[in-house]
Amino acid sequence: CRLPPLPLSRRACSRFPPARPAMGGHRGATPVLAALLGLGAVLAYGERRRRATPAPQYPQYTREEVGRHRSLQDRIWVTHGTEVFDVTDFVELHPGGADKLLLAAGGPLEPFWALYAVHNQPHVLELLQEYKVGELSPEEAPVAPEATQDPFARDPQRHPGLRVNSQKPFNAEPPAELLAENFLTPNELFFTRNHLPVPTVDPASYRLRVEGPGGRELSLSLAELRSRFPKHEVTATLQCAGNRRTEMSSVRPVKGLAWDIGAISTARWGGVRLRDLLLHAGFSSERQGEWHVCFEGLDTDVGGVSYGASIPYSRAVDPAADVLLAYEMNGQELPRDHGFPLRVVVPGVVGARSVKWLRRGAITPAESPSHWQQNDYKGFCPSVDWDTVDYKTSPAIQELPVQSAITQPRPGAAVPEGELTVKGYAWSGGGREVVRVDVSLDGGRSWRTARLKGEQPVAPGRAWAWVLWELEAPVTAGAELEIVCKAVDRSYNVQPDTVAPIWNLRGVLSNAWHRVRVTVT
Amino acid sequence: CRLPPLPLSRRACSRFPPARPAMGGHRGATPVLAALLGLGAVLAYGERRRRATPAPQYPQYTREEVGRHRSLQDRIWVTHGTEVFDVTDFVELHPGGADKLLLAAGGPLEPFWALYAVHNQPHVLELLQEYKVGELSPEEAPVAPEATQDPFARDPQRHPGLRVNSQKPFNAEPPAELLAENFLTPNELFFTRNHLPVPTVDPASYRLRVEGPGGRELSLSLAELRSRFPKHEVTATLQCAGNRRTEMSSVRPVKGLAWDIGAISTARWGGVRLRDLLLHAGFSSERQGEWHVCFEGLDTDVGGVSYGASIPYSRAVDPAADVLLAYEMNGQELPRDHGFPLRVVVPGVVGARSVKWLRRGAITPAESPSHWQQNDYKGFCPSVDWDTVDYKTSPAIQELPVQSAITQPRPGAAVPEGELTVKGYAWSGGGREVVRVDVSLDGGRSWRTARLKGEQPVAPGRAWAWVLWELEAPVTAGAELEIVCKAVDRSYNVQPDTVAPIWNLRGVLSNAWHRVRVTVT
Repeated sequence: CRLPPLPLSRRACSRFPPARPAMGGHRGATPVLAALLGLGAVLAYGERRRRATPAPQYPQYTREEVGRHRSLQDRIWVTHGTEVFDVTDFVELHPGGADKLLLAAGGPLEPFWALYAVHNQPHVLELLQEYKVGELSPEEAPVAPEATQDPFARDPQRHPGLRVNSQKPFNAEPPAELLAENFLTPNELFFTRNHLPVPTVDPASYRLRVEGPGGRELSLSLAELRSRFPKHEVTATLQCAGNRRTEMSSVRPVKGLAWDIGAISTARWGGVRLRDLLLHAGFSSERQGEWHVCFEGLDTDVGGVSYGASIPYSRAVDPAADVLLAYEMNGQELPRDHGFPLRVVVPGVVGARSVKWLRRGAITPAESPSHWQQNDYKGFCPSVDWDTVDYKTSPAIQELPVQSAITQPRPGAAVPEGELTVKGYAWSGGGREVVRVDVSLDGGRSWRTARLKGEQPVAPGRAWAWVLWELEAPVTAGAELEIVCKAVDRSYNVQPDTVAPIWNLRGVLSNAWHRVRVTVT
Repeated sequence: CRLPPLPLSRRACSRFPPARPAMGGHRGATPVLAALLGLGAVLAYGERRRRATPAPQYPQYTREEVGRHRSLQDRIWVTHGTEVFDVTDFVELHPGGADKLLLAAGGPLEPFWALYAVHNQPHVLELLQEYKVGELSPEEAPVAPEATQDPFARDPQRHPGLRVNSQKPFNAEPPAELLAENFLTPNELFFTRNHLPVPTVDPASYRLRVEGPGGRELSLSLAELRSRFPKHEVTATLQCAGNRRTEMSSVRPVKGLAWDIGAISTARWGGVRLRDLLLHAGFSSERQGEWHVCFEGLDTDVGGVSYGASIPYSRAVDPAADVLLAYEMNGQELPRDHGFPLRVVVPGVVGARSVKWLRRGAITPAESPSHWQQNDYKGFCPSVDWDTVDYKTSPAIQELPVQSAITQPRPGAAVPEGELTVKGYAWSGGGREVVRVDVSLDGGRSWRTARLKGEQPVAPGRAWAWVLWELEAPVTAGAELEIVCKAVDRSYNVQPDTVAPIWNLRGVLSNAWHRVRVTVT
């Protein structure tokens, strides 16, 4: 009963159902609640008006008959338990996006609901009853138990200190208080951004495949990766495109996980240079026009589709770009949550391209066809909404813009009078060094320069790691401070003053000045 | 009586005396007037309180005696005509900077005033009289006529349409109305930023010298440059670091030429790739850590010091960076104002590094020691002033941040009701494509996306040329519009909302949203 993946529509969003606030035609759902709950948008179903339905006699259908209803022309039918539902009229109302619901068309809901556990709630079942059209024939076997097992059951244990934004798939960030305490983020606290269940990989049988025109196909074991190529180490910061999304959604609701300022972390990565692997396979060392390297992970959705993303070939093969296939993180074996046994690390580039649990790298003339490359992780004008968005009009995010945030004190804190210490981080994409961080205690009217603490980059333009910064300033009791920070990178790019003008429907690229209000006691 | 150039102080600024508004200890000068006049700050001298001085009998001195007064300890003496002045107390008040005045210490002012013609005004002579301490001995010969000749006398003729910010040296921009009318700026209208007189170069005897450790020394004629190396063509925009400085000085006065939005232009450059020349001379094709290529122009100051600047060796040798030594501009021989017979064109980088009238390229382990590399063309925190600035704390500007401006309508215009056309340009440094321009008609509250018009770059990341953009919008009579534009580049860097938080004492890097207020009639 598994369906081949359908082509993703223009309105596709990420694979799990994120907060899709009800707009326009969405009956009854409360946008604010949905936005606040992030993944829990499905809870908004409970708000819908309930119909008084008499218990009817339903016709019976075989699974084969249900399976014929897989398009809007033929109607969209699904089963749950022994019941049959015609959800055609609900497709456009599905908070997770129409395309996600269509994946289940003609078959059972259970394998999908197992993946997206937010569905397993009484009001969702109640809602479903509105669309019931039949019963399965008694001779039909129930859905195989393995299809309804929790695919997240084998996810690893996590550190209790993490601030969890979503359990399934697991998405969590270190608490701001700890974020800037270490230049290298401890592995246990490194922010985790999983799109799917964590795959269980047997390191003995693991193989990495590399292929494409212009080189010979490689299939490499972990032992071969470690022994045939020099180990290369890079200190690099990874940042999620959605870091600081909560500030953007405070302007207007956006779709996505409610990251605070912690969807960013830094590690010392060890592994094989992607360049070395490509040259070993006979691929050109020259930048090849607009070719790309497409990565696929071992993490797959219900339809068997891997997480995928690509980077330009020119970056992959550039010795100064330091693109790694990493098997080590801060001197330890790569943890399962961070891509065991092998992940891509693309320094200076949005985290979404650093594919974890890497199974394949393909050299292709086009970018990755994956949802996450084509129809997500792109920026738009604030006026673009879910009715007008055309993903083809924006480039996939690669390098990220200059960024900084205050990690101490925390918003709303009462700080003692005397010497106030303000701490934070700053980073920019593309290896552009942060050259200055300005801090204001009066909302941006006056500025002083913070003290930067970081590692000297290997070379100019290869500053892959963040800088941590500090500023001490005397403050007097009773003062209400609006602490603000803004960073400047090597190209003298700066952060924008405010969030609203960079607002976008997916809540990515949130890099306005960070503002923290505190009271001095 | 020519002095060797003195080491430049920390407070050095550019070689000609730009607007240095009176602050703190400056007696009587009006900062606003000085700022408005740009180069004309010297005019502010006239505002000073005039002393009623009886005509005294002055002692007589030989030039040799005057020449002993060349330091603050020995006092600073200068001559003008047959008169001797002790300007020690004026050194710190010199609008062009103390270091510039010190260049003339112990000798005649005429050669310097010939270079910086703003001094040749009655109120400057009047001011000088306050410091008179003697007469030259009658047996001393007058200053040689060639030293007092106008070194700008041989500057080329210019197009009358240019908006001139300074005649000597010549600095001018195309009028905003014409700026975005052509994707390639006509040579006659291309903005001109000269630091010194335009040198007169005999193309037959011209030689380019290239030297440094790791390669053999080259001395190449124009014919050799044209015949021995393939001609490479690049469409690239050049922008002065001071573009849009007037907006910055409207926040607080800054030092520098009063550029409007036109210190930016685009041309199709033809010439020799610097990389080809370096490889021909045997220099490494690899990026060499932190080495640099230092350029020197044939334009020199009174002390014989050339204009100079450098770029990192890694950029010079990078085939994808397209650094040119250009002998053609828009298919024509390089005009004298733009560096005849050979100039550097560093795409994606501040114009100051594209040295004109190139005479020498040196491969060195350090950046150019020139004033313009070390003590100018750097950004600072808004709180840094001329008393606290430490040029060592900021990197020399190379890549510029994302930029855009509105060329039509002009500020204060009365536009007819109906369909309003807004036009402008957008560009970003480092070859980062402009991917979007947002335009607002209501001061930034709502935004729409402009239509971009430009050339497809040779490859991603090599977008050296600006894009022109247009937007049509219906407007109704009586409306007061605040038109705003902001651009987004490939790394999703954006322009800051306002000018004040990026203000810096030199008025460089002015890239806040451009705002134009108009009335609809």
